[in-house]
Amino acid sequence: MNKQILLVSRPVGEPSDDNFRLVETPIPEPGEGQVLVRNLWLSLDPYMRGRMSDQKSYAAPQPLGQVMIGGTASEVVDSRHPGFQPGDTVVGTFGWQQYALFDGSQRGVRRVDATRVPLSAYLGAVGMPGVTAWYGLVKLIDPKPGQTVVVSAASGAVGSVVGQVARLRGARAVGIAGGAEKCRHVVETLGFDACIDHRAHADTASLASALEAACPEGIDGDFENVGGRVLDAIMRCINPFGRIAVCGMIAGYNGEPIPLADPQRILTQQLRVQGFIVGEHLDVWPEALDELGSLVATGRLVRHESVAEGLENAPAAFFGLLQGRNLGKQLVKL
Amino acid sequence: MNKQILLVSRPVGEPSDDNFRLVETPIPEPGEGQVLVRNLWLSLDPYMRGRMSDQKSYAAPQPLGQVMIGGTASEVVDSRHPGFQPGDTVVGTFGWQQYALFDGSQRGVRRVDATRVPLSAYLGAVGMPGVTAWYGLVKLIDPKPGQTVVVSAASGAVGSVVGQVARLRGARAVGIAGGAEKCRHVVETLGFDACIDHRAHADTASLASALEAACPEGIDGDFENVGGRVLDAIMRCINPFGRIAVCGMIAGYNGEPIPLADPQRILTQQLRVQGFIVGEHLDVWPEALDELGSLVATGRLVRHESVAEGLENAPAAFFGLLQGRNLGKQLVKL
Repeated sequence: MNKQILLVSRPVGEPSDDNFRLVETPIPEPGEGQVLVRNLWLSLDPYMRGRMSDQKSYAAPQPLGQVMIGGTASEVVDSRHPGFQPGDTVVGTFGWQQYALFDGSQRGVRRVDATRVPLSAYLGAVGMPGVTAWYGLVKLIDPKPGQTVVVSAASGAVGSVVGQVARLRGARAVGIAGGAEKCRHVVETLGFDACIDHRAHADTASLASALEAACPEGIDGDFENVGGRVLDAIMRCINPFGRIAVCGMIAGYNGEPIPLADPQRILTQQLRVQGFIVGEHLDVWPEALDELGSLVATGRLVRHESVAEGLENAPAAFFGLLQGRNLGKQLVKL
Repeated sequence: MNKQILLVSRPVGEPSDDNFRLVETPIPEPGEGQVLVRNLWLSLDPYMRGRMSDQKSYAAPQPLGQVMIGGTASEVVDSRHPGFQPGDTVVGTFGWQQYALFDGSQRGVRRVDATRVPLSAYLGAVGMPGVTAWYGLVKLIDPKPGQTVVVSAASGAVGSVVGQVARLRGARAVGIAGGAEKCRHVVETLGFDACIDHRAHADTASLASALEAACPEGIDGDFENVGGRVLDAIMRCINPFGRIAVCGMIAGYNGEPIPLADPQRILTQQLRVQGFIVGEHLDVWPEALDELGSLVATGRLVRHESVAEGLENAPAAFFGLLQGRNLGKQLVKL
């Protein structure tokens, strides 16, 4: 049987178990031209929170009653398409389930080499989160050697890549994360220059003081994953001509928009603030994946994963991700 | 004697007459290499409000006890520099006074041809406000034919140029202005496609509804002069990949920062929000002034001026500008 998790209702405020339902259906059989995969890894990502809502957004909401959307790394178990053989490893968007069928000629399924880097890396540093980090850092912030880049959610799948790639390009990397353990990890394991525990600062002013201390030359680039108070504090410390790549505003995902305290800084500091969705920039994926793949394969980019075991534990792991309980890339091993 | 207006104190909240003092000093005599001008026109501009404060900003504050900063159009009355003759017309930053000396070899004084366009135009559409409009529209918003550009403070020196140049480039121009008279002027005299009276809308939602009606295809570019509620409403209607050129946030000039209600839209709509100060982009001035000069000389760009008579009336005219009582470029005829 194929275990699947469906989205059955939309959250009011924080999502909960009630929004999901675990079902079992027969494992489908591939028709002519189709391929059957067994999903080995499910990726959990903050964007999923947006899809649970039906607010107008850049992507259509996840329909109710259907398998929850999600990136997967999978093994081909049966194929009636000449391009795929059993044992092939592929990355696709097969959702929160154990098995899936796809049409072998469709786009959006990528064959990957699980001997170069571990298969799960294709859902993290060598996948969508990695390209997200790369695009915002390289294409939007474009740090010069010696400049300072700040990234929030620094211990996460995206933030961890942002800071490491910034350092590899000669910039100073300062992380912001929630909790002393995460900050230690960001500095000691990932090699950031500094990391600030935002939980240790009760208000914007206190957080801004900590940023000033960690960024004696000011902030030139901000890779923004959080928004709210964290962004307000960064804007107090940002240098003229600073760049803010807006990747996430997780602080506002539960419905209430969180205002930006002082947008006049955009004018007075001549900032460029740019929101982006990495799926809209497919042209950069090959270049980004090539660089990221090399960095992981040669050990210059440190990866860290939080792994939940079994599909039934995906909702709890997802809630943990939204609350920042994971360290590094949050995966479910199926 | 030379009448001068000095800044003598910094405003707390709205500026007032107490912040200025009118004095008379002897008309200076030019030394070797110096030029004496009589200022014929003084430009009043919103940026002056920022200079009155000593808050950290992109420009140093105006020092107390000195002649208030301001752009001027002047006639040379005496010259001991071979590059200038009595009767020459020049544009410079000679401040709120009737006469001024300058070193003939200094940069920042531009000789202008008052037969091609009227001298006062060099303080408006063919000067700093015009280049400001041109830079934000052409370099940051870069509207495609058929796209919709919104500009706040649409009847002002900058806004009036933004909308007219947008239309000349094939875009649809929608203004926002305060009061029915201004809106009529923006549509009937300046030729915008529509203009919304923000005073007729009590809240963001009402203003957003009016924008939706005036922009049936959504908003692709916003030239932002105001901030606050106006910007919040625009952000509700802006299309994916919209560009916001942040030129002014006059709503926040009196000290209290005005928050941006829903910055998450920057992410979900993949916006590019860019603050700019036109003085930092001197490379574009020649191209912009060339285009704007041609448009004014050939009558394709409509100019409108509000003129106060006499230096002693400059403060009141300036307060009127900050409160939006002017129509078009606010000048003082000296």
